[in-house]
Amino acid sequence: MTRSDRSPHGGDLPSGVARIAVDLLGGDGAPAVVVDGALRACSADPDLQLVLVGPQAAADEVIGALAVADRERVSVIVVESHIGMADAPLRNIRRETTVRAAAEAVYAGRAHGMVSAGSSGAAVAASAHVLGRLRGVRRPALAAALPTPHGPVLLVDVGVTLDATMLELVQHAVLGAAYAVAALKIQKPRVGLLSIGSEPGKGDRLRRAVSIALSDIPLPTGGRYVGLVEGHDVPQGGPADVVVTDGFTGNVLLKGIEGALRGTRGHEAAAVLLGVVGDVVVCHGSAAGADIADGITLAARLHRDRIIPAVAGLADDLLTELSSAGGLTIRDALGERS
Amino acid sequence: MTRSDRSPHGGDLPSGVARIAVDLLGGDGAPAVVVDGALRACSADPDLQLVLVGPQAAADEVIGALAVADRERVSVIVVESHIGMADAPLRNIRRETTVRAAAEAVYAGRAHGMVSAGSSGAAVAASAHVLGRLRGVRRPALAAALPTPHGPVLLVDVGVTLDATMLELVQHAVLGAAYAVAALKIQKPRVGLLSIGSEPGKGDRLRRAVSIALSDIPLPTGGRYVGLVEGHDVPQGGPADVVVTDGFTGNVLLKGIEGALRGTRGHEAAAVLLGVVGDVVVCHGSAAGADIADGITLAARLHRDRIIPAVAGLADDLLTELSSAGGLTIRDALGERS
Repeated sequence: MTRSDRSPHGGDLPSGVARIAVDLLGGDGAPAVVVDGALRACSADPDLQLVLVGPQAAADEVIGALAVADRERVSVIVVESHIGMADAPLRNIRRETTVRAAAEAVYAGRAHGMVSAGSSGAAVAASAHVLGRLRGVRRPALAAALPTPHGPVLLVDVGVTLDATMLELVQHAVLGAAYAVAALKIQKPRVGLLSIGSEPGKGDRLRRAVSIALSDIPLPTGGRYVGLVEGHDVPQGGPADVVVTDGFTGNVLLKGIEGALRGTRGHEAAAVLLGVVGDVVVCHGSAAGADIADGITLAARLHRDRIIPAVAGLADDLLTELSSAGGLTIRDALGERS
Repeated sequence: MTRSDRSPHGGDLPSGVARIAVDLLGGDGAPAVVVDGALRACSADPDLQLVLVGPQAAADEVIGALAVADRERVSVIVVESHIGMADAPLRNIRRETTVRAAAEAVYAGRAHGMVSAGSSGAAVAASAHVLGRLRGVRRPALAAALPTPHGPVLLVDVGVTLDATMLELVQHAVLGAAYAVAALKIQKPRVGLLSIGSEPGKGDRLRRAVSIALSDIPLPTGGRYVGLVEGHDVPQGGPADVVVTDGFTGNVLLKGIEGALRGTRGHEAAAVLLGVVGDVVVCHGSAAGADIADGITLAARLHRDRIIPAVAGLADDLLTELSSAGGLTIRDALGERS
């Protein structure tokens, strides 16, 4: 890895500047779409700086396309290998990969945040390992904000917690509510649990237990649990501002909605990682240049508005409390009430 | 229950006639939308006969709106109570409800098939209990055919198997492939398993185990397992004709796609129950009159084309074989290969 960056301390930068590490090798169309996305983002935001993480040749494509005066906005960390979609996510903890190097750039203060369109499992594993998790958080969650006729709906989680536990879903409800307050400016967010019907008791064992648990706990800043919501409530909006589900269901639903809307209107292709100490944005593997640019813009906004620290501040006490009560099992929750 | 039907034996009817039992009390808009749907279906299909199951007053609304000559096409089974969305599905096994009486009408040969827009769990429980399951089938599955730019995609299951086992998903793959051949006229159907990425090994423990199992078993009439597919492959089509998933994920995905498409184009609101000995169609709780009519038309088609017996014939040997090998667990499947 070559560290060619001239100002390693992000803290020295003026407050309007956002410096974002970009994984040049992440995504199906990498590096071409990432190069495209980086250029689009630079052109749209004069206070944006980029730390390009990947092969020198790809970084040179970005630099060569910029006006000479803008080239100072870009630095490069040369990494040749990345983690493929078919690799096990944990492989990048032992190997030098673009996504791990991007996380290390954030940890070292060389970048304020990072964006990858590679394997989301790899991005989550690398950033949780390098940056650390918020106190009490068992597993981070990817949160995607979808536009709906009733305003944005935040879907949590869209790909991390594949065999989710009750504690993880409850913690993700807390993180999602905090993000809705801090980023979406929704006061007293309404939190729903995704299920197959809205009547109490609908759903599998996990949902029934989580619903009981969510009825009992406070949520940040007056947020409240509004009960079960259904698949159509995510694209249509209405009953809930935050919709909580396991990462398997959330990923399938998000891609299903995107597939249904393809060609009819834009969709949100970037998700924010909640529960990690740092600003991390994950784009779809199938992201186009404009989607990568959206992801970079989102990462810059996370930094400028200090959103992740605000989420941590809102959620900290609750997450810690929930974590220490983590012995509660689905069986306990269902048994107590049945 | 009053049995006012004049010709109790469905077998005596000419082959073009289809006589369908309709649950007048099933669905959010019942009985009004069911009355509307019944009238639409009668008007569209002169060889359709209906057995209306519900309160006499609702049945009289249908009969009163028909031309005098058409009134002979309708018979009534008076049942006043139904199973609500918030009731436990098994309650209707011990109670006289519209959905159970509809299943009994099918069992007795008074109707060729049945349609309900009530609680799908209740419809499945009643029909599995009254009509019986196909030999070897652990749990039935609801299958919905979605229109896509690449032809229909059959999504199985959309609401029954909430805490699905490996065996259930493998059996549903067999049933789905058989239905694709018998009803959708797809020779050598391509069967995909819904997951969060298309690369081998993506997904939760259940998906990884099921994918290994599906790679090893034959499917009816040259159908083949094509591996993992993603959420967007259901509304977009392409890689698979049949997409298998658990009932929780399938229900959320189906409703999410429908919610995304609302107002842009029509969607399929009726699902066929696979794995039960009889023609059973379940409509959305939120079905409109036109959706109920579609469901009745689908039930009539199941009967006229002898689709469910064809599914049984294609799947029977495999289902029995899988059932006797049912001791295989997820742990076994994953352990053998890891």
